[in-house]
Amino acid sequence: MPREIIFGEITGVQEGHWFEGRKEMMPASFHRNWGAGIDGNGSEGAAAIVLSGGYEDDKDLGDEIIYTGAGGNDANSGKQVADQKWTNRGNAGLLKSMNEGLPVRVIRGYKHKSPFSPTSGYTYAGLYSVVDAWQETGKSGFKICRYRLLYVGDNTERKSAEEVELDLDHNVREKKRVKGTVLRIVRDTKLAHDIKALYNHKCQVCDFAIPTKNGFYSEGAHIKPLGKPHNGDDSLANLICLCPNHHVMFDKGSFSISDNYELLGAESGQLAVHTQHKIDKENLNYHRGSHGYN
Amino acid sequence: MPREIIFGEITGVQEGHWFEGRKEMMPASFHRNWGAGIDGNGSEGAAAIVLSGGYEDDKDLGDEIIYTGAGGNDANSGKQVADQKWTNRGNAGLLKSMNEGLPVRVIRGYKHKSPFSPTSGYTYAGLYSVVDAWQETGKSGFKICRYRLLYVGDNTERKSAEEVELDLDHNVREKKRVKGTVLRIVRDTKLAHDIKALYNHKCQVCDFAIPTKNGFYSEGAHIKPLGKPHNGDDSLANLICLCPNHHVMFDKGSFSISDNYELLGAESGQLAVHTQHKIDKENLNYHRGSHGYN
Repeated sequence: MPREIIFGEITGVQEGHWFEGRKEMMPASFHRNWGAGIDGNGSEGAAAIVLSGGYEDDKDLGDEIIYTGAGGNDANSGKQVADQKWTNRGNAGLLKSMNEGLPVRVIRGYKHKSPFSPTSGYTYAGLYSVVDAWQETGKSGFKICRYRLLYVGDNTERKSAEEVELDLDHNVREKKRVKGTVLRIVRDTKLAHDIKALYNHKCQVCDFAIPTKNGFYSEGAHIKPLGKPHNGDDSLANLICLCPNHHVMFDKGSFSISDNYELLGAESGQLAVHTQHKIDKENLNYHRGSHGYN
Repeated sequence: MPREIIFGEITGVQEGHWFEGRKEMMPASFHRNWGAGIDGNGSEGAAAIVLSGGYEDDKDLGDEIIYTGAGGNDANSGKQVADQKWTNRGNAGLLKSMNEGLPVRVIRGYKHKSPFSPTSGYTYAGLYSVVDAWQETGKSGFKICRYRLLYVGDNTERKSAEEVELDLDHNVREKKRVKGTVLRIVRDTKLAHDIKALYNHKCQVCDFAIPTKNGFYSEGAHIKPLGKPHNGDDSLANLICLCPNHHVMFDKGSFSISDNYELLGAESGQLAVHTQHKIDKENLNYHRGSHGYN
């Protein structure tokens, strides 16, 4: 009986935890697939990956990792003999995790070539977000699926993922910071994931779900924003499922929502609200007040 | 003759630069309005603000600042006697800077209450991005316009803006990091700004421009991504103007673009391309190759 997939931290396994072998990762569902690098699939997402030196194209900069997908390699030699496909079970899983904002546990094995690798066994490197996926021609001449992962765990001794992204060239090579200002940061929470699932990624304003290579993409919008000075909750009563366009418009107050879910401002009609979704009217009131609708 | 507005760093004025008074900021167009906190307007954006203790509701956490807009205060007493409006020249300027991703020079005056304020005169605190704007009822009982600004300058001794946003509660009070993973970071460059202006914020795929309180919002999408391992250029030949929905779809490879600007994949029809806009076909080819269209 395969154990069910578990996303995020697993009790008893801290960042830096050392495993003697792959087998030890299985009982707690830390990584359930002894033979594969990626634990996951296209319908649920990928929960964990192992970097084990199998792909010469992998890059490991610590808090940023360029990871090569699965498939296309010869079972005996390990050599790339065919193109990798997005439809591969594990590859589709990582795409799903990217679209859904699901955290991926990263494990480094002793065969993986990086300054962070253990000399024997495997170490848990922490939680990462998949922020990009693309295909390119690998050193083998065949197409490989590649993913960019950024560290998003709790360890503040490490740099934050966003800082790494900004500083990467600076720290690693070019001593030059990426210029420019920040327009938007979309962060995803566990509950944002739940609200998106409830609506099958359909925007509650326009009913559009963004199609991707594997499934759909949407964003969980906090009605009363998280963080100071708003201090909104991360709760289903404070979340709605929106497409990026309506998320931008909502956050900027281009439209707001009445207590009976009428759209106000630049949008008209009704917010589609699932019968299981109880929105706290106080949060709607806060949003209206913040953007001049009261 | 009023001098023209200048965005970003001004030669000869480094972060930490000290000005004896407001007058000294004018010759170089560092801050052109002696009497006002905000230098800017709704059509061009705001290029600089002074924090001078005028608003009791201002908050200054160093790399994150909550700034109160202009207007509604009595000329003699300085007290809030009426609601602030988004249509106020300076307030509209800050909204424009938010939507366009324009950098804002922040200056702290000796009357401003914060650990970062000088004891006399004014100091230049660096470049900030306006990342949020909302209205609330101030301590006076009247509505005030508020803005959240994050430091985005080059000084790596300071924390990056995103790190501050993630760590703010951690550092300042609650010792608790905002949980969750990163779905998207949209960064804006000088050239992204130019491409958006060329298209009047209309998406080159769907022709939609996101309406906001003040003007329109769009995103500059790099065809060949910036940063490693893609190493795309920040150039007009590598940028297109997209709405957030099509930006997500493009980055995820839901659609791509042929050399003659046909849309491939989840979108059909033609990319609208301005006669002055020369796109490098190599970049289109790279995007197609990255997402399985070649």
